[in-house]
Amino acid sequence: MDYRFSERTEKLSPSLIRQMYNFALEDISGFVSLGVGVPSFPLPEHISRGLADKLRYDPNINKYALGRGLSELNSEFAKKLKRKGIEIDSEREVLTTTGSAGGIFCTLMALVAEGDEVIIPDPAYSNHIECVRFAGGIPIYTPLIENEEWRLDTEAIKNSIGNKTKAIVLCNPSNPTGAVFPEEDLRKVGEIARSNGLYLLEDNAYEFLTFDGRDHFSLQSVSRDRDNVISFFTPSKEHAMTGFRVGWVVAHPKVIDKVFAVQDQNYICAPSISQHAALVALQGPQDHVNGFREELARRREVMCQGLDNLAEFLNYQRPHGAYYVFPRIIRSRDTEINENAKRRLKEIPERFRTRDTELALDLLYEAGVVTVPGISFGPAGENHLRLSFAGEESDIQEAFDRINNWLRS
Amino acid sequence: MDYRFSERTEKLSPSLIRQMYNFALEDISGFVSLGVGVPSFPLPEHISRGLADKLRYDPNINKYALGRGLSELNSEFAKKLKRKGIEIDSEREVLTTTGSAGGIFCTLMALVAEGDEVIIPDPAYSNHIECVRFAGGIPIYTPLIENEEWRLDTEAIKNSIGNKTKAIVLCNPSNPTGAVFPEEDLRKVGEIARSNGLYLLEDNAYEFLTFDGRDHFSLQSVSRDRDNVISFFTPSKEHAMTGFRVGWVVAHPKVIDKVFAVQDQNYICAPSISQHAALVALQGPQDHVNGFREELARRREVMCQGLDNLAEFLNYQRPHGAYYVFPRIIRSRDTEINENAKRRLKEIPERFRTRDTELALDLLYEAGVVTVPGISFGPAGENHLRLSFAGEESDIQEAFDRINNWLRS
Repeated sequence: MDYRFSERTEKLSPSLIRQMYNFALEDISGFVSLGVGVPSFPLPEHISRGLADKLRYDPNINKYALGRGLSELNSEFAKKLKRKGIEIDSEREVLTTTGSAGGIFCTLMALVAEGDEVIIPDPAYSNHIECVRFAGGIPIYTPLIENEEWRLDTEAIKNSIGNKTKAIVLCNPSNPTGAVFPEEDLRKVGEIARSNGLYLLEDNAYEFLTFDGRDHFSLQSVSRDRDNVISFFTPSKEHAMTGFRVGWVVAHPKVIDKVFAVQDQNYICAPSISQHAALVALQGPQDHVNGFREELARRREVMCQGLDNLAEFLNYQRPHGAYYVFPRIIRSRDTEINENAKRRLKEIPERFRTRDTELALDLLYEAGVVTVPGISFGPAGENHLRLSFAGEESDIQEAFDRINNWLRS
Repeated sequence: MDYRFSERTEKLSPSLIRQMYNFALEDISGFVSLGVGVPSFPLPEHISRGLADKLRYDPNINKYALGRGLSELNSEFAKKLKRKGIEIDSEREVLTTTGSAGGIFCTLMALVAEGDEVIIPDPAYSNHIECVRFAGGIPIYTPLIENEEWRLDTEAIKNSIGNKTKAIVLCNPSNPTGAVFPEEDLRKVGEIARSNGLYLLEDNAYEFLTFDGRDHFSLQSVSRDRDNVISFFTPSKEHAMTGFRVGWVVAHPKVIDKVFAVQDQNYICAPSISQHAALVALQGPQDHVNGFREELARRREVMCQGLDNLAEFLNYQRPHGAYYVFPRIIRSRDTEINENAKRRLKEIPERFRTRDTELALDLLYEAGVVTVPGISFGPAGENHLRLSFAGEESDIQEAFDRINNWLRS
């Protein structure tokens, strides 16, 4: 059999987030991870209990939810948005999806045609880049301004627009940089999108998670931008529900209709049980959210201290949101790359075999610490590492001890 | 804003299965449904209980399952296949997906490039047709042999192969015809695929549901066919878990690798909670499965009797699997189409405005019964209706009383 695949699939780059983690699982016993961004928190007990009750009493919990999501869930979600100053029609302007990821994938497949250009402030969440390419689009990277806390370069965005431009894609708070984009810059990007007839996609997966009084701002709250803006939300991080795979797309009804049609062909509907879990999460007490935020703020401190101790090796912008920091590599050890790292390097696509990938592999094979090479988040990510502080404090501490020992040995 | 979408999305036909149901929800109070194929059974109690326990005790139930599925689940599924005479490597040859649908979508996106031809025995499950078109492929319809219980026409399949042919897609037991394809015919199709280097996709969603001693046969049990065959399985129907969205793809490791890469960009992973529910279902008692089968056999009798009473209007092949029957319309009422039906007809894509769609709309607006127009299952479906007997016996009875009264009034 001659195994032939579609071009869109052949050019798909594997996620280095995933790949680094798999190398660790296969090769390194006792590794500690600053890689995959999964908060260590268990499911809050009241959600677990509420869902167990629904399993006993709700006769529809096992059946398809064939609308645009459970209507009770969509209207509860609309209430949540209202508290943020965003007013939506919960029947026509929202669709419950299989995680934000499923919603973003369906949306990009719905919007982006072969040869369309999509502007991506860079570095960006790698899945956004890959989805654009998978849909046949061409990512147009506009670098974020690193030394101004990874701020949006609105002039660069404006100058990147051509007659094939279809959309702009943002992640705010930013994965992988931890930046929280200021309202002022976002309004400018909204204006640019509006005056050029572009879709503006905002991925708000880390919306609840901001520090130091920086507030998350969504362009859905600007009424004249709402025609263009497509927003993605999820309870995944806020309620420790990453594995439930549930999220929402908020957009103009014409967009929602198309995304819904794509979703129907793709995975039919978001899992009913997860929709019920999300409903319990939205309706229940919210105290754990502050708890998560405070705990993650402490972990951020541990990570920043760790980085401060490595100032001659890694230079970083303090993150004000999400649970990532994206330091630049300014110096490393002068030694030859580890043999196992060299072997694994060959399994990584050629365009990703950069200095940061070599360092990430060395850190894994020499120090037993998982990190993610910056290059997988776009060209401006080269020579950086993405470090996640979603894990336990003691693991973060241990990771930095190991990195420190190795870099200085 | 000028709302422009990708061509693949503009040409997507909405599912008439879904659309007929939505018309009913919006317009008809007290309708009865022979439309959407969702078994009326509640989740078996031991699955509900087992899952509630896991919610309390398993600290990872809320987190991504980042491999190819929970390894415990994949190996339990491999054991189940072994009892059917199918031996697979549960680490390399299986991927847990978000329902069969999610697996089929990811697989067709991975295989089918713009302009590739895909042979689809017709009538076929509408999602298969739409997914092929969405991926840029061209469905090549080869009619099933209606008067021989909707048997596969293996000669027609062979004669449809050209140099752009990439794959053949089957659903067995068949949605929408209720046919169970005989082993002999399947082996011939396997041989055709093998000797022409084609992928053969078999959707086994109704695998457990066969009647009258007809057995389901999978080409995964033919070792020399295994290089080509890609098989889809799901606990959805067998364990009343449609809303959980979990399923499996079984294929050669090279295929699994690519489908996995697509899935990772799409919805990341099948929901962990649903994977845990599937594990409980596979490990627990299986008595309810016979119960489901017996109950559905009774419902099939009710439906067949209803159809026998309408012999001058509808001519049907007795189904031996799944919970569908696909009668041909041989006569209807001579009256003008209902006014509301006429209005809704305009919302349906032009290529679907056939006699069967008119009848289905009339049955909805005149008799309050939901059915699905045959045309949405491919050209050979024209002039047929798909009727599901997954609903309660009393609903099926009521539906036929209404249809009978209306047709004869």
